[in-house]
Amino acid sequence: MDIIETANREALRRMAEAEPVLIDVRPAAELIAGLGPHMVLHAGPPLVWAEMCGPLRGAIAGAILYEGWAPDLAAAEALAAGGRIAFHPNHHFDAVGPMTGMTTASMPLIVENRRFGNRAYCALNEGLGKVMRFGANGPEVIERLRWLANTLGPALGAALREQGGLKLKPIVARGLAMGDEMHQRNIACSSLFLRAMAPDLAREVGDRETLAQIFAFIGGNDQFFLNIAMAMGKAIMDPVKGIAASTIVTAMSRNGSTFGIRVSATGEQWFTAPVEMPKGLYFPGFSAADANPDIGDSAIVETVGLGGMAMAAAPAVAGFVGAGSAADALTYTRRMYEITAARNADWTLPTLDFAGTPMGIDIRKVLETGLAPVINTGIAHREPGLGQVGAGIVRAPLACFEKALVAFAAMMGIAP
Amino acid sequence: MDIIETANREALRRMAEAEPVLIDVRPAAELIAGLGPHMVLHAGPPLVWAEMCGPLRGAIAGAILYEGWAPDLAAAEALAAGGRIAFHPNHHFDAVGPMTGMTTASMPLIVENRRFGNRAYCALNEGLGKVMRFGANGPEVIERLRWLANTLGPALGAALREQGGLKLKPIVARGLAMGDEMHQRNIACSSLFLRAMAPDLAREVGDRETLAQIFAFIGGNDQFFLNIAMAMGKAIMDPVKGIAASTIVTAMSRNGSTFGIRVSATGEQWFTAPVEMPKGLYFPGFSAADANPDIGDSAIVETVGLGGMAMAAAPAVAGFVGAGSAADALTYTRRMYEITAARNADWTLPTLDFAGTPMGIDIRKVLETGLAPVINTGIAHREPGLGQVGAGIVRAPLACFEKALVAFAAMMGIAP
Repeated sequence: MDIIETANREALRRMAEAEPVLIDVRPAAELIAGLGPHMVLHAGPPLVWAEMCGPLRGAIAGAILYEGWAPDLAAAEALAAGGRIAFHPNHHFDAVGPMTGMTTASMPLIVENRRFGNRAYCALNEGLGKVMRFGANGPEVIERLRWLANTLGPALGAALREQGGLKLKPIVARGLAMGDEMHQRNIACSSLFLRAMAPDLAREVGDRETLAQIFAFIGGNDQFFLNIAMAMGKAIMDPVKGIAASTIVTAMSRNGSTFGIRVSATGEQWFTAPVEMPKGLYFPGFSAADANPDIGDSAIVETVGLGGMAMAAAPAVAGFVGAGSAADALTYTRRMYEITAARNADWTLPTLDFAGTPMGIDIRKVLETGLAPVINTGIAHREPGLGQVGAGIVRAPLACFEKALVAFAAMMGIAP
Repeated sequence: MDIIETANREALRRMAEAEPVLIDVRPAAELIAGLGPHMVLHAGPPLVWAEMCGPLRGAIAGAILYEGWAPDLAAAEALAAGGRIAFHPNHHFDAVGPMTGMTTASMPLIVENRRFGNRAYCALNEGLGKVMRFGANGPEVIERLRWLANTLGPALGAALREQGGLKLKPIVARGLAMGDEMHQRNIACSSLFLRAMAPDLAREVGDRETLAQIFAFIGGNDQFFLNIAMAMGKAIMDPVKGIAASTIVTAMSRNGSTFGIRVSATGEQWFTAPVEMPKGLYFPGFSAADANPDIGDSAIVETVGLGGMAMAAAPAVAGFVGAGSAADALTYTRRMYEITAARNADWTLPTLDFAGTPMGIDIRKVLETGLAPVINTGIAHREPGLGQVGAGIVRAPLACFEKALVAFAAMMGIAP
């Protein structure tokens, strides 16, 4: 129908005209109105403690300990289980977070979408190994979060303010030509980010050894840029919410129990279904029996057409997530053109002769083709605190799109 | 013949076992025995002043001015034309240099090939625009060379000594998965190099603004790693020289007038032919009429199987040098397998499902197939001082390989 096409063109225009700029790093409490004590933001659609998977519970206990709301992990878990902690999705507070997606008073990034004035937030990436986003909550996890809050965050914030912000679309454009798909592979963008920040970090950080440690931390973490890409994705998609009659997906997210999507016309409403298990490759010593179900806000990266949608950019990641050969990587992206409304003029894929990345997932096309969006994801151990055990691909459940279409049809006055 | 196969296996073994490590940056005069005053090392095989092209003459005049052997450019050119300057190839002094390839008392890199104990040298990359390697010799060129000698070189040298050297093969391996072919595209390796050096640079450089300028210079130069890759190539290939009965090419180089190759069995001997004109794309405002013939020691990168030989790594560079589509990039590398003896186990190409880069150019295979090695090259303006006007591909002249085979046959006692 013309009214839907017109609405979707508006959605695509807003995506195309977005100008995401990383402008600062500040404590969450200064940024997110309403983020008070005894309040934890998590990945995915809303859920209650009883529904939460192991890694999510582990991360929450660690976050409570980090914030000082309980003296130890046992007390923290008791506090959380006893209904004394308010849980809300990151997405309800302009934020996103990878895997368990903890956001409390820790250190979020800001990405300002200058064209539309909205802001989006995401915590700093903690690196690999035992980290809170995979549910770990030991002393080294808490200690690292304090270093991020007290040392890295303020330094990055000062350097970003000094240079007036860092434009993200050009960095992502270069990263796509350097084998990143911005979800499971971020080595290029992480390196380009360090390169862009190094001069101002040198100017802003007085202590040489501290500066050296900052460079070593960012430089030792090939996924550092993931959280920046996620905040960018949120900053791009939020202005697309609420366009009457638009069938473009504005968010995809998982809390370890349910997978939720949002669609432009239906605004803030979540359409959920049980999450699926990622299919992938496991690190030595682990198998599918250890895997937690799909979790994290990181699928915001696929929502803007990167990650699994842009698999063609990253034949090296196709092997890492068990998606097959270099030719298979191209096929993944070619199929995603069938469920998207346009191709991104700013983000192109050299291996597809500079075709643009798939842009604007249309729920109608997903249901017409039966092709669900493909998501490249890390796989968490199902027990809290054990961290990442592999990487793979997962599909957004088709049931989410079916429910969304039913609601959309009702809203439009069309019989189901 | 078995004797040739055995010799070539030894050549391949030495290439495979090479361990190039960047260990220091020091003034050339401290490193190269015999590099005295009034002596200029240049790219390519030997030639005399009367044979030299415009950019080479321009660069020599600038180098003389930089060294203080003449008060101005006119006097420098008169000195050079008057037979008062000794000219020698870089290759005769364990060195290489891009384009005109000037090496005097300026600031070379060291790459030590730890496995075999040899060393190879190359000046620091000057960046883009008006630079000596393209024949420019104005005050800003001389000034930049002084900053490289007095500020950047000592800082990098100190940081490299602090970390005990930087292993280069792993960086190149990552770069190949990030779209670099290490000749006309080095953005990934340049970024990875900065990332690897940043912590120790922070420790070694006391002045914050100086440190910021160092990061800005390296970070603003996507070709910074080219010169490191060239020294690495020289460090890998020099131990392959002089294996009796080996038909593997150990060097390819051009001085703007002649193209020369060296072959393992025939040691230091050059087999030369007139250089060809690169075929490529020109920057706005320039055309083939402005182009200087092919020049530079940089084809040492192709000699180890990178650059044009590894075009499959870099579909983005295929467009830049006018070599066609992404599919064409794969074809270039596939054809180069026909003239090489092996595939590199350390350096693999994701777009070819992790096949190794072509390794060990065999002069017999070049002549059997009629396929000359393909070289990705920058194109200099034919007038000195105007800099780069484009980029393209050029072929090593088949006549070099014909002459080499005749000499090889004579050495082996085989009738031509």
